Parts: sequence; C-alpha cells; structure tokens
Amino acid sequence: MSLPAFIREKDGDLWLTEVESGHLRLEWKLKRVLHYERSPFQEIAIVETETFGKALVLDGVVQTTVQDEFIYNEMISHVPLAVHPRPERVLVIGGGDGGVVRECLKYPSVRSIDMVEIDERVTAACYEHLPELAGWIYDPRVRLRFEDGVAYVRDCKEQYDVVIVDSSDPFGPATALFQEEFYRNVRRVLLPGGVMTCQSESPLFYMPVLKNTYRILSELFPVTRTYWASVPTYPGGLWTFTLASLGPDPGDGGFRERIRDGETRYVTADLAEASFALPAFVRRGLAD
Amino acid sequence: MSLPAFIREKDGDLWLTEVESGHLRLEWKLKRVLHYERSPFQEIAIVETETFGKALVLDGVVQTTVQDEFIYNEMISHVPLAVHPRPERVLVIGGGDGGVVRECLKYPSVRSIDMVEIDERVTAACYEHLPELAGWIYDPRVRLRFEDGVAYVRDCKEQYDVVIVDSSDPFGPATALFQEEFYRNVRRVLLPGGVMTCQSESPLFYMPVLKNTYRILSELFPVTRTYWASVPTYPGGLWTFTLASLGPDPGDGGFRERIRDGETRYVTADLAEASFALPAFVRRGLAD
Repeated sequence: MSLPAFIREKDGDLWLTEVESGHLRLEWKLKRVLHYERSPFQEIAIVETETFGKALVLDGVVQTTVQDEFIYNEMISHVPLAVHPRPERVLVIGGGDGGVVRECLKYPSVRSIDMVEIDERVTAACYEHLPELAGWIYDPRVRLRFEDGVAYVRDCKEQYDVVIVDSSDPFGPATALFQEEFYRNVRRVLLPGGVMTCQSESPLFYMPVLKNTYRILSELFPVTRTYWASVPTYPGGLWTFTLASLGPDPGDGGFRERIRDGETRYVTADLAEASFALPAFVRRGLAD
Repeated sequence: MSLPAFIREKDGDLWLTEVESGHLRLEWKLKRVLHYERSPFQEIAIVETETFGKALVLDGVVQTTVQDEFIYNEMISHVPLAVHPRPERVLVIGGGDGGVVRECLKYPSVRSIDMVEIDERVTAACYEHLPELAGWIYDPRVRLRFEDGVAYVRDCKEQYDVVIVDSSDPFGPATALFQEEFYRNVRRVLLPGGVMTCQSESPLFYMPVLKNTYRILSELFPVTRTYWASVPTYPGGLWTFTLASLGPDPGDGGFRERIRDGETRYVTADLAEASFALPAFVRRGLAD
C-alpha cells in the first residue's frame, strides 16, 4: 500500500500530520495504516492512532476517531430526532462513515433513512475497517445513495421529517453544503413540522461560517437554534450545530423526554437541553 | 535570548512543539518568543502564536493563550463565587498567570484575595508580557504570596469563603495539589458555608484523576459537584472542574442570579447552570 504525503515514517514510527491553516499542526503517532486510496473525490485513509484508536482521515484531515466519534454523531442526530415529536422518514446528507445512521436507528419511530453520500469509497472503507461506525448501513430501514447531496435535494421528489447535514468542512466537496440554495432545497424536502440540523463549525476558528449558516437558516425557517458540544479531536474543540424547524421548538423543552439516552455515551436529556446554553461570545456573535 | 528545546527554527520559522504523552504532538507556529527563562521550578516561556495569540508555556506545555484563556478562567472563578452567597475572602492556589484574580475582582463582595503561587517568576513574566491576564495583580485587594500552596494551607491560620485551586497538570510541582491531605487542609481553611473549586482534568485523557479528585472531595465535603467546559487549547478539549461545598449547593440553582456575566466572554447564568449537566460517560464514570 502506498502512503499519502500526510503520513510519514520517522525513526521507524508512522506519524500522521494534520495541518490547520499552516499555523498549527497536529502530529498523531500511528500504530498502523489500515487503508489508503485515492477516490475520484479525495484521499481516503483509515489509520489506527495511538491515542484515539482508529480514525477516518480525508485529504489529511481527521474526520472521526472511534475514541470520540460518539460525541459528534450523537449530538447531530439525537437532538433533531427528539425535537421532532415522531420522526419516521429521515434524510442524511453526507455522513459517509455511517455514525449518524447508527444513531438514527435508535429511534423506533424511524421507518426509513436515506443516506446520500457523495463518495461511495468512504462508506465502503468504513464498512470494512470501522464497523463500530458503519456496521449498521445495511439495516433494512437504510437506503444508500451515492450521489451529490446538493443535486439530490434540488431534484428530490420525496419528503422527510428530519434532515441531518453531516458535512465535512466548507472546502472542497462540501462547499455547497454551506450555501443558501442548498438550505432552501432542504426546507422544500421537509414535511410540515419537519426539523433539520447541520454541523456549523467551531466558533473560535470559523465564526463567520457559523454566523452565515445561522443567518441563512433564520431567514428560511420560523425556528433556528444553535447548540454545541465539545469534540476533542476537532480543532477548536468547541463545536456548534444549528437546528432549524418548520414547527417544533427545542426552546419549549418538550424534547427532553424523547431523547433515547439509554445507550448513549455523551447525550443525556439534561445535556441535550443544556447544549442550547451558548457561550457568551457565541451568543453575542449570533445576535449581531 | 537562548531558546528551550521545545522551540525550534525550521526554514526561517519558529515552531513550538507540545508533546502529549509521546503519541500526539501539537506544533504551533510562532510569530516570536517574548520571554524565556529557567526558574528554580520550571522552564517559563511566553510566546506569540499565529493562531491563538500570546501564550504562557511551562516546561513545553501550553498553559493558557490570550485567545481562549477566558473560558478556563471564568469557569473556575465565577461558578464558586456565585455559588457562595456572599464571598468576601478568597484564596487562590496557583493561578500565577493572574487570570483567576482578574475574574475574582469582578465580584464586588470580594474584599481580599490571597494568591499563593509557587513560582514568582511566572507571575513576573506574565505581568510584563501578558497584562491582559496579570494586569490586576497589584489591585489593593490582592495579596501575593510566592510559596508552596500545599505548605500554605497546611500551616494557614486564616480562613476563607472561597478557595480556588488553579493547578497545572498532576505532574511536577502540582502533584501534591491532587492529594487527599491537601484537600483536607483546604476544608480546614474554609469558613462555615465555604466553597472550593479545582480543575479536575480531561475525562478523556485523565478519567482516573477526575474520579480520584471527586472521590476525595465527596468524602470530605457534604456537597460535591463536577461541571465542565470546552477549553480548545487543552488536549481533550472537554475539561472538568470539581466544586465542593460546606454549605450552598449549586444543584438548587440559586447561584444563577449571582453570576456576574456583564463582562464575561464565556460564562452566562444559563451556561453556568448548564455546565453541571455532564456527558453520559463522565456521569457514569463518577457513579462507579
């Protein structure tokens, strides 16, 4: 197996270098490289790190590790699924590692999950090497579609109770997932009373992305609320999600009882509610 | 100025390498090194990073950056100062960078702050190069004592309403600040109804430290509560604090109104209350 430029051997050890904007680099010592390929969209690597276990790496950026993936995947999934009083039809845009699908399947009202991932190779690699994440993608309730999520919602004739936008950072393949046209189409594919959530980046590194996402959504939806979690392996750590709704409002607190926290590692009913209490600088930034 | 081993020049740029347990390294590009010295206790550097602004670095570990120090300093200070109904006398153990003192001075009931820092050189360097943090240490309400915090509380004849233990990680000079004898003495120097808080590390990297701290405190105090924040520049990101009290209980929520969040950047009354909702794996870990 050839190695990508972001993995190097030094003194007999393998190190993955993750570059943050040229000014901050993370170096992860690896036990081994489980998989590497170039897909038509990106470089895909699955590695085993010493500190955080196995990890999916796209174009040199760590997307998820088995040690802390549950924080991101639970928070982006459970909150909208509990805010909607009875989600049956779910659309996941992105989420190729399968972690969001795994969480959605915990809600017994969910009858179908359409997962639209642009890069089939990501899902195939995760199914093989990260079964902790992707092991549920062949559940009979899941329909996999390997195509562009932006085009999918533009042309889509179906409608959903909940849409979850699990994108990578707003560069490369994911750029259009942060633009108004995309969210306008997301609103269109929602059933009455539908709820959507997207990841809206770190307010420390990408406050303009969060502000822009929040602005777009609050112009399109009657209810828009940002919530947050601490995701250790993402730079900035403090991570936001933004929920927008055609009906139910998490502000009324009624979703607490519907959180399925029996088998979660991060989410509890208390924590889900607490996650809407934003740090002062985020609240101020969004109020501008 | 000579440079420490953890700062190196590469291709004309300065890079600080922070080593986490030999398996994870952070490399920070620096604009410049403002200060470097070897004190009797540790290597002290103050640098200007590209991404997080100026930073205090002790023995190669980034302690605080001007970009995100407010999160840690506000959370370790405002919560105990608001849980106590009327804090007048405050003891700060450690906190040599001055950030905790700055926050404590925001509470008008506070009449005196004794800050006991083992390494006078840390405070002197911060006063010179990090006035954003240390600029308040000569306030007439502050008394600086440069001595061992463990010996100070052991021999102390004074008593306090609030004790804040702002230690570095449980290695080197700070080891004893995580042990039972120290906390027994902290309890002894508290006035009736007194409240203490300590930083209790990241549950992802140091769950045993958190569990041990929580166990010691809950054996010594009638009220013990862990709360948390997202501190981007600390490895693990998700950071805990543990509050122990001889009287007031944050669980009754009465402290909300006393949070002085007029001039904070992270803390709000909502967020302070929300910070006691622990991630499921932390709650489970503490219940064991």
